[in-house]
Amino acid sequence: MNGEFIDISEARIPILDWGFLRSDATYDVVHVWKGQFFRLDEHIDRFFESTKRLRMPCSIERDELKKILAGCVKHSGLKDAYVEMIQTRGVSKNFQRDPRKANPRFMAFAVPFGWILNPNNFEKGLDVIVSRIRRIPPGSIDSRIKNYHWLDLVSGMYEAYDSNSDSVILVDEKNNISEGPGFNIFCVDESGLNTPNKGVLEGVTRQTVLDLAEEIKLPVNLRSVSINMLNDSKEVFATSTAGGIMPITKINNKLVGDGTPGPVTRQIHKSYWELHINSKWTQSVIELI
Amino acid sequence: MNGEFIDISEARIPILDWGFLRSDATYDVVHVWKGQFFRLDEHIDRFFESTKRLRMPCSIERDELKKILAGCVKHSGLKDAYVEMIQTRGVSKNFQRDPRKANPRFMAFAVPFGWILNPNNFEKGLDVIVSRIRRIPPGSIDSRIKNYHWLDLVSGMYEAYDSNSDSVILVDEKNNISEGPGFNIFCVDESGLNTPNKGVLEGVTRQTVLDLAEEIKLPVNLRSVSINMLNDSKEVFATSTAGGIMPITKINNKLVGDGTPGPVTRQIHKSYWELHINSKWTQSVIELI
Repeated sequence: MNGEFIDISEARIPILDWGFLRSDATYDVVHVWKGQFFRLDEHIDRFFESTKRLRMPCSIERDELKKILAGCVKHSGLKDAYVEMIQTRGVSKNFQRDPRKANPRFMAFAVPFGWILNPNNFEKGLDVIVSRIRRIPPGSIDSRIKNYHWLDLVSGMYEAYDSNSDSVILVDEKNNISEGPGFNIFCVDESGLNTPNKGVLEGVTRQTVLDLAEEIKLPVNLRSVSINMLNDSKEVFATSTAGGIMPITKINNKLVGDGTPGPVTRQIHKSYWELHINSKWTQSVIELI
Repeated sequence: MNGEFIDISEARIPILDWGFLRSDATYDVVHVWKGQFFRLDEHIDRFFESTKRLRMPCSIERDELKKILAGCVKHSGLKDAYVEMIQTRGVSKNFQRDPRKANPRFMAFAVPFGWILNPNNFEKGLDVIVSRIRRIPPGSIDSRIKNYHWLDLVSGMYEAYDSNSDSVILVDEKNNISEGPGFNIFCVDESGLNTPNKGVLEGVTRQTVLDLAEEIKLPVNLRSVSINMLNDSKEVFATSTAGGIMPITKINNKLVGDGTPGPVTRQIHKSYWELHINSKWTQSVIELI
């Protein structure tokens, strides 16, 4: 923050920052596994793109940004980390309401790698509900901009907890499946993989699954996914930087297939983690400093 | 903050607070005019209601909250102020993603009274555009919860600036008028006042206009307001705690009526400010401390 590495317990932003008072901010999260960033350039691409779409293009060059992120990881001492870069609109002078008068603020931090599904629970999988809450539509906010507008997702999480479930999938304006809190959804049927093509964050882990599917010649349909289609799927899994490939084994209290991770999910999961030791997809933290 | 009055330049929140990283927060803003809070209890009612809907009911009692807000104003030395109370989800221990594990955080601040339309420019009025951006719909986020999900509004502000306009009105899912950045919309035709009834914040200033209209027996229609209806209106005005009653004299580069504030707008504006010296509607800052 402000050009210095500090302990995260001391990292604070002014309450007048529009990034707080209007959630006028964008971010991205890349993970580090065994000292290696995974698909760092794709995360940086998306971050730069998001800042441009918000009319506050990031002024930090790519190589400098990589150094900052690597510095956060180094100072944290973590081998497996969740590394977040953030840009907010900043503070306007004299309490002006005009966002053009504000100075954008950049910050980044590294925290321990977080799992939406703890790997010890891989066989058990995630138990989710489908909520009637509609994910904020792209006609309101461009879903390509990674953003902190999460109240719909948080309300959905409380609904899930009320049903003793782990998490939630929201629907879109047409009542088709959209995404969950921090994850994209894939389902498997005889045609191959299916995943929503609109109104969802274009996740880097989602893209990795698309890339892996192409490699193993598994057909992928980017399409509307109805609730019925989800319910009839043989396998369902979630994808996220926060945990990778995570089987969903129960939806609305009904088992998916036989209630255990299916063969496609297992294969994608295995291939995903194999990419983490492939230098085409990774960059060493130490070498970036 | 944290039970102390501090200078606003020192008021900061931890970057790990979900109020920042998920915009998982609610707030309310009350104004002080010549040392008097205006409709303070209504703002507190809404704030309490918002915190309940977010499943983090405010633990501060009403009288204590009033003391805190009055204390902020007193310490600021301001006679006319914009006083904001905020509750965030807070920070979860050990970086857990579960919002139930977080400790809600309360804070409040007073800054100089802000105007969406400077009163010196009352005769000129606001020049706005109607954007195609859709305000985040109530099916995604309950619009009764005052929230910081403003990226749709901020994008609209940039569109307005691109057209050399002052501000923007967003539409709803059916392409009817919704609201602008921090203000509700009223328009006047032969039937009386019209204002959208769905998917908009139920503003306290909006409610004040409804109350004033009842007093002067001016009919009000809470209804869908189409863009055509807006364009054909004799008068249009915006309502906000940040400025009160503000004439809109130009929409999409076309004059509203003859391009000056109309008689209904003038009357409501006058009555609104007269309420500020009426003890039924106000509470003295000093007496609350």
